[in-house]
Amino acid sequence: MQSEIRRKLLEAFRDAKGGYVSGQKISELLGCSRTAVWKHIEELRKEGYELEAIRKKGYRIVKMPDKISDNEIRLGLETNRLGHDIYYYDQVDSTQTIAQELANKGVKEGTIVVADEQTGGRGRMARTWYSPKETGIWMSLILRPNIPIQHTPQLTLLTAVAIVQAIEEISGLSPVIKWPNDILINGKKVVGILTELQAEADRVHAVIIGMGINVNQNQDHFPDHIKEIATSLYIEKGKYFTRAEIIQKILLSFERLYDQFLKDGFKPIKLLWESYAISLKQMITARTLSGTIRGKAIGINDEGVLLVQTEEGEVKHIYSADIEISK
Amino acid sequence: MQSEIRRKLLEAFRDAKGGYVSGQKISELLGCSRTAVWKHIEELRKEGYELEAIRKKGYRIVKMPDKISDNEIRLGLETNRLGHDIYYYDQVDSTQTIAQELANKGVKEGTIVVADEQTGGRGRMARTWYSPKETGIWMSLILRPNIPIQHTPQLTLLTAVAIVQAIEEISGLSPVIKWPNDILINGKKVVGILTELQAEADRVHAVIIGMGINVNQNQDHFPDHIKEIATSLYIEKGKYFTRAEIIQKILLSFERLYDQFLKDGFKPIKLLWESYAISLKQMITARTLSGTIRGKAIGINDEGVLLVQTEEGEVKHIYSADIEISK
Repeated sequence: MQSEIRRKLLEAFRDAKGGYVSGQKISELLGCSRTAVWKHIEELRKEGYELEAIRKKGYRIVKMPDKISDNEIRLGLETNRLGHDIYYYDQVDSTQTIAQELANKGVKEGTIVVADEQTGGRGRMARTWYSPKETGIWMSLILRPNIPIQHTPQLTLLTAVAIVQAIEEISGLSPVIKWPNDILINGKKVVGILTELQAEADRVHAVIIGMGINVNQNQDHFPDHIKEIATSLYIEKGKYFTRAEIIQKILLSFERLYDQFLKDGFKPIKLLWESYAISLKQMITARTLSGTIRGKAIGINDEGVLLVQTEEGEVKHIYSADIEISK
Repeated sequence: MQSEIRRKLLEAFRDAKGGYVSGQKISELLGCSRTAVWKHIEELRKEGYELEAIRKKGYRIVKMPDKISDNEIRLGLETNRLGHDIYYYDQVDSTQTIAQELANKGVKEGTIVVADEQTGGRGRMARTWYSPKETGIWMSLILRPNIPIQHTPQLTLLTAVAIVQAIEEISGLSPVIKWPNDILINGKKVVGILTELQAEADRVHAVIIGMGINVNQNQDHFPDHIKEIATSLYIEKGKYFTRAEIIQKILLSFERLYDQFLKDGFKPIKLLWESYAISLKQMITARTLSGTIRGKAIGINDEGVLLVQTEEGEVKHIYSADIEISK
């Protein structure tokens, strides 16, 4: 099936919100005969869609294939802007690298890059992110906000809130945020966020937000060295999740928060972030590139900088660190 | 002449600081015969170098060709790190674009990209920078400082100080800095700085500092629409300058300030910057992307943000704007 026809067809089903779309309507939308409509429907079936056909009513999607692709993401996406342009790959080195190139080429805000597998997934500080096939969400979102670069770290925090909200809604689990960029369930990492930017000193060209979300992995999926520190939604909830649906929820949640952020600034986002954050008001050890700081995490400032009060009473600004909560 | 041989030869002359280098020494350095040395010297002559040859003493460079290239920059360069890796081009679209690509590929700190002509020179906010052949310095410097992104704008200010110091030393002129990124002489723009970055939210990968310096242009070189606002060192001083020498002075001045910055932070740089800045303590109009602010420019903060006090007494943080000083 031509991708343009498939897109129109799936959009029609999306707009019907689970209801029927008549053969007549599809034939008008695609500008093709009823026989051709039937052929297109058969092709969707071959791709794994379960479709119901009822005389006089038309076609209805009963179940989507358990895979992730641009179509699965598009069908059911309720956002106004984000995720409308989708670059989907079966396998990539890193969605961030591709998104960086796309951003350089000028693609518009809201464009996402999604892969079923990353062979060179990246985390913060040039660390690796384990991204095996068919198990998780490896996605990069391109934004072009009109904000000073000093405010970019706020978007990492906004992203964390968006993902926590989406996971809560879909799974009923209660993830927490660990500054600056991790989301944990039962003390184990389920999500990592990597915010990168292309900018002038006083103007952001593009912010590229990478999200790695462990969804359907079981314990055996994780290599030994991360088994103790990583988890997945499947492990925590005991059921499988549809990755495309999670992506849709994240994008929707993100868009709401982002629109609020662009309109009202960081304050409302900060309040939400604090409500999900662990490691605030606790004694922490922060390992930075220039040394280790111990003290009480008293909060974050408007730039997303962590404020730590040392035993001597001095308040240190921590821009980047690995945090450990003292027992 | 092979570039490796030329490089070694010119480095030998550089190390001699204007003095003689014996044929014997050159022959040892290059691992070639005295006859071959003579041939290499002849080739330099053909390239426009004036060389003196004195029996028993050796060779001495009397005058360098009035052109700009990697060799001219290398010969006489007194820095420890900056400018040792030089990418020179006769003509490029933009040195910034090339430097961005090189930074992505992992070239080391201090690498510079220099072109004799830019066909698509860029300024702040996607504006153009007029960069005709053989008249100015169109250069990009790649840095990899271990600083949070919030501090990146400090490097624009550091660059301005480095260039002002170099111009003062070489020409005796007294340039001033206009926040955020222009250098003026007699109220007209002689230098523009464009600081771009590749970064994570909490870690800088590369800062790419573009410098456009009008050196030997006369009035006729400037297109009509910038004649009234642009000037060059030639116009202001009435003499021509050797561009390679200015680049060397800038790199040396930059390296001193940068080493101090990495060691002691922004404070000493800020004091220097303020001593060269116009528009401080004056009534200004600042045009930002989100509106116009009028007030007194009371200073810059440690992040390079301009602080403007409005008539109502409120202090506004200005991250990015075009500034006009009220008469």
